[in-house]
Amino acid sequence: MEKYGYGADVGGTTVKIGFFTSSGELLEKWEIDTDTASGGEAILPDVAESIKGHMAKKGITAQDVLGVGVGVPGPVADGVVNGCVNLGWGVVDVEKMLSGLLGMNVKCSNDANVAALGELWMGGGKGSRQLVMITLGTGVGGGIVVDGKIVNGSHGAGGEVGHIRINDDETVPCGCGNCGCFEQYASATGLVRTAKRMLEESDAPSKLRDTELTSKNIWDLSKDGDTLAREITDSFCDSLGKGCAVIAAVVDPEIIVLGGGVSKAGQQLASGAQKAFLKYAFHGCRNTRFELARLGNDAGIYGCMYMLL
Amino acid sequence: MEKYGYGADVGGTTVKIGFFTSSGELLEKWEIDTDTASGGEAILPDVAESIKGHMAKKGITAQDVLGVGVGVPGPVADGVVNGCVNLGWGVVDVEKMLSGLLGMNVKCSNDANVAALGELWMGGGKGSRQLVMITLGTGVGGGIVVDGKIVNGSHGAGGEVGHIRINDDETVPCGCGNCGCFEQYASATGLVRTAKRMLEESDAPSKLRDTELTSKNIWDLSKDGDTLAREITDSFCDSLGKGCAVIAAVVDPEIIVLGGGVSKAGQQLASGAQKAFLKYAFHGCRNTRFELARLGNDAGIYGCMYMLL
Repeated sequence: MEKYGYGADVGGTTVKIGFFTSSGELLEKWEIDTDTASGGEAILPDVAESIKGHMAKKGITAQDVLGVGVGVPGPVADGVVNGCVNLGWGVVDVEKMLSGLLGMNVKCSNDANVAALGELWMGGGKGSRQLVMITLGTGVGGGIVVDGKIVNGSHGAGGEVGHIRINDDETVPCGCGNCGCFEQYASATGLVRTAKRMLEESDAPSKLRDTELTSKNIWDLSKDGDTLAREITDSFCDSLGKGCAVIAAVVDPEIIVLGGGVSKAGQQLASGAQKAFLKYAFHGCRNTRFELARLGNDAGIYGCMYMLL
Repeated sequence: MEKYGYGADVGGTTVKIGFFTSSGELLEKWEIDTDTASGGEAILPDVAESIKGHMAKKGITAQDVLGVGVGVPGPVADGVVNGCVNLGWGVVDVEKMLSGLLGMNVKCSNDANVAALGELWMGGGKGSRQLVMITLGTGVGGGIVVDGKIVNGSHGAGGEVGHIRINDDETVPCGCGNCGCFEQYASATGLVRTAKRMLEESDAPSKLRDTELTSKNIWDLSKDGDTLAREITDSFCDSLGKGCAVIAAVVDPEIIVLGGGVSKAGQQLASGAQKAFLKYAFHGCRNTRFELARLGNDAGIYGCMYMLL
């Protein structure tokens, strides 16, 4: 008999909650505020209350539900979160606490990882069991899926691909303290930084000189034929392909799914990344395909649900 | 009841065969020649014959045996080898062919991968389920173990870490065609190449100038206090730590086991690599430990046996 389940993707501002069937239909979704006061102590009770309320409204009981999958913006090992700055959390045993509050099965993983599982289950990587998802946002997040399972790593740092060093000559430090990290180039922030640098270094005319430097504006002008904007997005794709080639030499995925805000650039991004990847990748893994994420901001809740299956 | 099993580590010159108990005791080991004539067509029949002969001698039957694990020097996906230059092989379905010849269960994986499994089971990584083995030989091989299972990758290129790009300024191509690959620095060949370069670039006195440049001689002189030799091995460890930091940002292992010929350098190598790793690694995975491989050339047959359990 078909069962139900909940996915809760916990972010620094809101918690997205999805109500699913076990076959992957998203029946309802809603958001609640993330209360980060007092070390974020209310976050899990608020999630529990929201789910209990929903179950009561629907007239379903714990027997009808597979459980709750939870994604959090921090490292998770064996269901325990080890520090989560955006939530105010130190070490929090999410699986134990939330299942205590709900009397249901709870699975917890990192948010980039659950997004990867979501895309694997119902998005750009559907049908694959070997996938890497790269989330191109303010930073670069990664989710590594091997044989259908997330690689959390032994310290919860599996898939922290944003901190692969891809440039020895960088002198500006990354947020992590090192220099030359993948996310210094292949994130929205990195794209804007590269644009500033290239605009300063060049005298070439560009509409970018009269525009606010955002990821969207840079990509839009690149597509419109602005030469310098095109050079900037080419440089972005080169860094992206280079980092992906490194990842492929470790886990050799079938598909690399590009998600996050920058992935709205669409096919030009995917083709550009694939082209650069072919330049840098080991010959044994050059058949890896690039796909765009399809679930947008819902990838996390899909992946949370998938962990329960 | 305890059962038996065979591990067959197929190399370009010999096939090492081990006869094990399922609890991990190596009861006997021997070698047969690898016959690479005619596209290596006799290799698997020779292995089958050797194992059949051993079973007859011991008076054991297929019922007593879990099967045969096979390691091969090439990419393997789903038990099928996809090209193996050293054996003369094109596409060979090892599991199907050998189990057809023996009427037993056969598992096949890449040789670097089975060595990693061997070290995980009974060697430097004993007790861990999250491990990366780096084999420092003529090239650099890698075996990635996640949750106790080998990451073969979707094209059999999982763990091909020797071809991670770690240097953008390299102009000499690697054997794979790219430039700046990990194995151009962190292999025995790479060590000798670095030594030649540093000897040419420096006027400093060094006993290396009157010695054959081999990995062993370079490490021995480094330990003896030869300043230039020490700079060379420091450079080697720096590259090794740098590559390992990249791998850790993808799969976040608990232990990195260093094997292969260069690992005979011992504790100085492991400490040097760990020190460089701490310099380059993402903070979330800095607790990864470095260990020396303990099974030497037997790691492969141990790992072959482990695949059967």
